[in-house]
Amino acid sequence: MSERLDGLKQRLGQLSDLGHAMSLAHWDQQTMMPPHGGEARAESLATLTRISHEMFVDDETGRLLDQAASEVNGADPDDDDPRLIALVRRQWEKARRVPPDLAAELARAASVGQEAWIVARERGDFKGFAPYLERNFELARRYVDCHTDSGEFECPYDALLDDYEPQLPTREVSDLFAALKAELVPIIARLSDADPVDERPLHASFALNGQRDLVSEVVALMGFDRSGWRIDDTVHPFATRIGGGDVRITTRWDEHFFPTGLYGAMHECGHGLYEAGLPRRLRRSPIGSTESLGMHESQSRLWENMVGRGRAFCTVLAPRIAALAGGELSDIDADTLYRAVNRVKPTFIRVEADEATYALHIILRFELEQELVDGTLAVRDLPEAWGARFQEYLGIPVTDDKEGVLQDVHWSAGLIGYFPTYALGNLIAGQLWERAHTDIGDLENQLATGELGPLREWLRQRVHRHGAKFTTAELLAREAGGPMSVTPFTTYLKAKLGDVYRMDLN
Amino acid sequence: MSERLDGLKQRLGQLSDLGHAMSLAHWDQQTMMPPHGGEARAESLATLTRISHEMFVDDETGRLLDQAASEVNGADPDDDDPRLIALVRRQWEKARRVPPDLAAELARAASVGQEAWIVARERGDFKGFAPYLERNFELARRYVDCHTDSGEFECPYDALLDDYEPQLPTREVSDLFAALKAELVPIIARLSDADPVDERPLHASFALNGQRDLVSEVVALMGFDRSGWRIDDTVHPFATRIGGGDVRITTRWDEHFFPTGLYGAMHECGHGLYEAGLPRRLRRSPIGSTESLGMHESQSRLWENMVGRGRAFCTVLAPRIAALAGGELSDIDADTLYRAVNRVKPTFIRVEADEATYALHIILRFELEQELVDGTLAVRDLPEAWGARFQEYLGIPVTDDKEGVLQDVHWSAGLIGYFPTYALGNLIAGQLWERAHTDIGDLENQLATGELGPLREWLRQRVHRHGAKFTTAELLAREAGGPMSVTPFTTYLKAKLGDVYRMDLN
Repeated sequence: MSERLDGLKQRLGQLSDLGHAMSLAHWDQQTMMPPHGGEARAESLATLTRISHEMFVDDETGRLLDQAASEVNGADPDDDDPRLIALVRRQWEKARRVPPDLAAELARAASVGQEAWIVARERGDFKGFAPYLERNFELARRYVDCHTDSGEFECPYDALLDDYEPQLPTREVSDLFAALKAELVPIIARLSDADPVDERPLHASFALNGQRDLVSEVVALMGFDRSGWRIDDTVHPFATRIGGGDVRITTRWDEHFFPTGLYGAMHECGHGLYEAGLPRRLRRSPIGSTESLGMHESQSRLWENMVGRGRAFCTVLAPRIAALAGGELSDIDADTLYRAVNRVKPTFIRVEADEATYALHIILRFELEQELVDGTLAVRDLPEAWGARFQEYLGIPVTDDKEGVLQDVHWSAGLIGYFPTYALGNLIAGQLWERAHTDIGDLENQLATGELGPLREWLRQRVHRHGAKFTTAELLAREAGGPMSVTPFTTYLKAKLGDVYRMDLN
Repeated sequence: MSERLDGLKQRLGQLSDLGHAMSLAHWDQQTMMPPHGGEARAESLATLTRISHEMFVDDETGRLLDQAASEVNGADPDDDDPRLIALVRRQWEKARRVPPDLAAELARAASVGQEAWIVARERGDFKGFAPYLERNFELARRYVDCHTDSGEFECPYDALLDDYEPQLPTREVSDLFAALKAELVPIIARLSDADPVDERPLHASFALNGQRDLVSEVVALMGFDRSGWRIDDTVHPFATRIGGGDVRITTRWDEHFFPTGLYGAMHECGHGLYEAGLPRRLRRSPIGSTESLGMHESQSRLWENMVGRGRAFCTVLAPRIAALAGGELSDIDADTLYRAVNRVKPTFIRVEADEATYALHIILRFELEQELVDGTLAVRDLPEAWGARFQEYLGIPVTDDKEGVLQDVHWSAGLIGYFPTYALGNLIAGQLWERAHTDIGDLENQLATGELGPLREWLRQRVHRHGAKFTTAELLAREAGGPMSVTPFTTYLKAKLGDVYRMDLN
């Protein structure tokens, strides 16, 4: 390593070490920390964020970037080092626009807001939660204001979205979502007239120990390995990489609904595989991390829905679910299971939504948070706006904030601009799924025998190994044959749901 | 808060927040982290340590100290702020005498030494370990040299001891240990002629679930509370406070020896109560923390030995141990249990030693490490010196370095000057125990019914609430009626062991 690059890389390594400590603090807060530890944790996270932010935005980082840039002059711009410098310079310029006080305040409010959300959700108390939410949106507006003069973003929401999905304008997301909604609404309408599928396989009594064993077996097939992974219980499941060789996933359980545990775990394990598949040569480097949450979500949704709810893997799952449930379900077959886990039915909770209605939950949040940021919607009016739009998109009335606006942790934790990446993940997953079938001729047969390694390795080659070297648009152009698109996902969905409901949805 | 003090307190608060992150990283490493996470964890901890050290020794800290000092001029020197300034100035001056290169080298050698120790202990290979130990003692001597010109310490070892037991001269420890040894040796000699006690209650089969339930019940009586505490399994038990409202203890279990789990947990819970009892108004402040390891150990030993192995609490434990063991032990009574858990027998391993022989293990280490620091003993001659002194003090021949000089992690990790605080803890516990009986007339009756709250509150008032405002000597003068002393501990011990062995030890 050249000396001129070394200075930059050392500094970025130290920032990665601080990130390690922050990831651990977040993981611990949601899995291990006793309730009274929240206040001190918020302060510690605020300080770590502040130190990290100050170290990053410092003039010295700019000097190191300049020095490093002069070193890589003339190199292939797609090499690691030029890519690193370009990525970091963009992040550095964006971060420098945010005063350290605001950065620390964002972190503190996020941590405090999360604790308040836990209490509020339990009590269904939106009023008690509203001040925290107001604070988070106020801070988000101040954050947006920092970027106005840069001319980098087309609209206020762009600056927020960019933190989760770099360099994707809100305008493109709106267009994609409009096209997606136009496809989904008629599908959902057609299915509402179809004969309902047999849902009994979902709602039996599933002993928790048996569920845990099943999940252990399935995530092990996917690539979970105790020497470098953990799985724990939590309220709102997530996956995180603390550092190299230390990936942690979480799940929750429902004794009377196995998909909560199983598909939740497959989802988070999909995220975990992305983190575990990052290149070792780039550890402690920003380009050795994951930057696009849309790409991240594509990994989780692909494993959860396309593999886990696919006809092929249902042949692996069926005997295990049958054994778990026993009783009248003891002879459930793969087709019955496949149809049950893919039933389409509008429900209140996003994370339990089926593949057809899921995006509508997201589009609703995407629209509402833009209005909350713009100030065209006030926080106190949010439950009403939520209810009205929910009725319009999903056709069912929200009567309890617990099943409405209080269901997600995101806004409480200051994650504003994050939601659209979930639906983008479905679209990207559709593109990768199509390409994987082209590249791996035998894919469906492999999945039907529980042989998940080749798909994992394919994803590692196509996606994971690149880390954050490319934007989502660049990566899709290189590895999936074109720009982000609705068609592969809706084609997949229509084929699957047509199969499940025995009708032609094209 | 005045503006001039505010700057200092903010900086110290941030250092406390970094400490929070480091405590969590250490706790996680020993309880949760998957094995492959170690490399990234070491890097993260090194960076956090470096940042924290640099922030503390910076000139700016001195400027803030000066500014703060001018503010509290004329205040009662025992008020929080003058005490804070005095404590931090002393720590700052000491830390600044150590060049950053030496500080980094100490940390690195400690980490490398620990890894070497793990291998050496497993193999019983002192020769392979010796170079690491030599390096650690050489660095300790260089550390001592940094402080020579300050005129603050009477002898080389003082500068080391001071890191663990601030402002206590080696000379005083030597005098105390000489007096203690003079009392203990004849007791142990007398007991070696006594009829042995019935040890069967210790060695039955104790189901782990039952042990966990018992420990949960006992630590709850002590004050463990799930809203602000955790208990987890680990290999080498410890207690830590991550931050306010977040105390974590750990224990290990032996299915055939219940004291490992139960008394280990009571010991760590004693440490935890000290941390949990620190004053809320001083959180994130160095004087709201614990500085004296002797005082800390007094809390753990008091709960483990004086409460947990006391006749009164054995009446609470006996029926529970009987139920746990079942079989032929199902009718074990309090007296039999009491005698068994207090049996005296020289053994090789310090952490398994009884209350009478324990201090001899410490005195031996205290003497040897002084000689190693002075250079009057060479590392290569250590096993021989250890063996000779062990035979002299404990009357049994060491034949295996695993059970001798390789048993403790401390020296390998650069913790030189740490050992004496363990035995000082016993002495302080003796003083507090005596005073508690004066202050709480009904104490023994309370303990016999499992009512542990009044003792805990008494300790909070006498010790915990002061945090690090006072040195151990100052605190004992204020709250226990006099300077550190051997007599209360040996008086307690002679009464107890006389009771256990049915003989007059006075």
